[in-house]
Amino acid sequence: MTTQTAGDQQNLSEYNRSRTLQYLYHHGIASRAQIAQALHLTPAALSKISNHLLSSGAIIETGPLEGKGNRRSIGLAVNTGQYRVLGVKFARSLIQIGLFDLAGSAQAVWVDQATDYPTPAEAIDAVKQHIRAIMRQFTNIVAIGMAVPGPYLRSVGHTAVVSSMRQWREVNFKAEFEHAFDIPVIIEQDARAGALAQYLFDPQPRNENLAYYLLGEGIGLGVIDHGSVINGALGTATEIGHVSVDVHGIPCDCGNVGCLERYCSAVAIHDLLNEDRTIVPDSPALTHHEACIALFELAGRGDTRAQEIVRRIGTYVGYGCVTICNAFNPSRIVIGDIVAEAGEPLLDRVREVVRERVLPELVESTAIELSTLPTDAAVTGAAAVAIMYILDHPSRFFTPQTVHNATTNHNNQER
Amino acid sequence: MTTQTAGDQQNLSEYNRSRTLQYLYHHGIASRAQIAQALHLTPAALSKISNHLLSSGAIIETGPLEGKGNRRSIGLAVNTGQYRVLGVKFARSLIQIGLFDLAGSAQAVWVDQATDYPTPAEAIDAVKQHIRAIMRQFTNIVAIGMAVPGPYLRSVGHTAVVSSMRQWREVNFKAEFEHAFDIPVIIEQDARAGALAQYLFDPQPRNENLAYYLLGEGIGLGVIDHGSVINGALGTATEIGHVSVDVHGIPCDCGNVGCLERYCSAVAIHDLLNEDRTIVPDSPALTHHEACIALFELAGRGDTRAQEIVRRIGTYVGYGCVTICNAFNPSRIVIGDIVAEAGEPLLDRVREVVRERVLPELVESTAIELSTLPTDAAVTGAAAVAIMYILDHPSRFFTPQTVHNATTNHNNQER
Repeated sequence: MTTQTAGDQQNLSEYNRSRTLQYLYHHGIASRAQIAQALHLTPAALSKISNHLLSSGAIIETGPLEGKGNRRSIGLAVNTGQYRVLGVKFARSLIQIGLFDLAGSAQAVWVDQATDYPTPAEAIDAVKQHIRAIMRQFTNIVAIGMAVPGPYLRSVGHTAVVSSMRQWREVNFKAEFEHAFDIPVIIEQDARAGALAQYLFDPQPRNENLAYYLLGEGIGLGVIDHGSVINGALGTATEIGHVSVDVHGIPCDCGNVGCLERYCSAVAIHDLLNEDRTIVPDSPALTHHEACIALFELAGRGDTRAQEIVRRIGTYVGYGCVTICNAFNPSRIVIGDIVAEAGEPLLDRVREVVRERVLPELVESTAIELSTLPTDAAVTGAAAVAIMYILDHPSRFFTPQTVHNATTNHNNQER
Repeated sequence: MTTQTAGDQQNLSEYNRSRTLQYLYHHGIASRAQIAQALHLTPAALSKISNHLLSSGAIIETGPLEGKGNRRSIGLAVNTGQYRVLGVKFARSLIQIGLFDLAGSAQAVWVDQATDYPTPAEAIDAVKQHIRAIMRQFTNIVAIGMAVPGPYLRSVGHTAVVSSMRQWREVNFKAEFEHAFDIPVIIEQDARAGALAQYLFDPQPRNENLAYYLLGEGIGLGVIDHGSVINGALGTATEIGHVSVDVHGIPCDCGNVGCLERYCSAVAIHDLLNEDRTIVPDSPALTHHEACIALFELAGRGDTRAQEIVRRIGTYVGYGCVTICNAFNPSRIVIGDIVAEAGEPLLDRVREVVRERVLPELVESTAIELSTLPTDAAVTGAAAVAIMYILDHPSRFFTPQTVHNATTNHNNQER
């Protein structure tokens, strides 16, 4: 998933170090011989790369694999304990900050109500102060990943005009954060960050065709196709929340009609509960998240009207899955964030809709699951963005203790 | 766009030869230094690769670039005249076979009416005989590309259950064709083949975020995102024809409801003309293609009812473009095949719908165009599939005249 543009010998070395780190990150422990074979590198080239990464502390040796005894069969692994990253997740009403090790384990999570601040500018200032305080308190924080709601225009740095994000629209995330600290800050659309988290932190490395379907205050999607994130020209691909499921349906602030987001996002559910106060009477006093949880709890206690609403939400979430199958054909769709907390009843209805509307061959080969990442999964995606950046740019973070002379003569390093 | 699985030194060499060929194919003429820089290869490694490709006739030297005079600034280019390929396009009612050089120029095109044969099996036999006759008549044909309507299940070899392809459903294209001749046969979904053709044969190499929107008897889509084709797990991604634009709309044989294909494919248009015979009275006697052309000609002559129908078709084609923008965010959508022959009036309406329904930032950055490939563009896609295979597997087609010893010691080849 590395993107390289300029190319010289220095870049080539960095590119191959990054590929080696990424391979090890996904496979846990591997020998030099296994890595060289998988990455189409000669043993000599891989030996040079692994020496550099070992000497800089980016990787460690884990001992012999399968008792072969020679140097090429010693296990290598990423040194995930050396550094920490921060993940920051922005949603309409919530800002979460998490401290993570490089394995993606949360060490602490803080939550701010964005709505406590009169303006986005004040919320942004508070986030900056909070991050600085965390960086004073904890050592070895080397990068910050941020997850923002889509459509996020990557090159420009701000989100496009959509209903559920109006308050953040005036914020240029790149301008605000990119140079705010003395460590790199990387900003990504939230569902794509979630897909990266599923891809990086899945305990059993599986297929590389994965869709992360984010059902939060907005609805987003991140898709990894054969190991590559689908980005689109401006970084606004896979905006499932603004794909229409009904060209004659409810108008959306994005300009489209019948956007999925208008039917099954936490905001749409909260709107529904505010219109009909007989279901969750104190709905207007609740946050979007609290209102959804109140509905799901009612349904869980057997309230038939709440169950009907959950079923209707599941139907629309299912329509979205049908589109995801036909548009992206992933082998796994992971459903996460607020609306996923409706749990099995929602998932059952989603699977039912998919069975009704998707080609049988695709139904059989597409797993649809609820996210198994911990409850702070939202902010975990932001951390994944930072970790992916480190794996992509190892030399910015890891400096060898003994400097090797990076000549083009491979024989110097051969053993 | 190379997919490599096993990995040893032999594969590594082939992989780098393929990358070099692909770079040259896209850039026309480049120096060794330019290629080495772009592909992250050392000058020594690139020199070895280019010697191999020159010696096998895969590439040629075109003379000095920018008068620098040294060997590394001599232009290299793919030798597109050495071989020819066949492209075979299957549609519901038509089978087209084209003979192409490696630059993608058609040298001859033959058309069979599939409906002339009582069964698909007999049509398949006729195609095989036709291909064998062409191979006897013309020399240097080294590969055959085939384009079949989607959803095409790549690993299994047949198309999935959908209305516009019922007659082909029982045909296993892989089993029928993969070993039918003594040259490789490569089978691809038709719209993806069309996207490859746009990508390979575009006279001005442009951005690498391209969608080819095939409006034929069926509706298909092929998307290239940052230089990679989006395939999905089974090869059935980007099936825009079966993405619903109206979950309460017309049921489709694929199981879904409101599939785009039911509103603006050539088959849907022909169905409409057969229902209301007052527009094109002899419609039932025409092929799908002929019926559409008759309608477009009426509209062109100022028939207001025909114009209204073209406008309605453009509206639905536009809804599809809106979904393509939100799902794939390409920088260019190329509209091709039968329905594209409606020309500018259709394109105007499509652009109007996109302006109404897509975020302004995306409208500005997404070009929507009619295909500029020659009228036999359909079969050109099939040829592109064969040519891409050759670029991916150079050693199966090009053998060096002087055999180089492929040791890992680069110094042998250094100059």
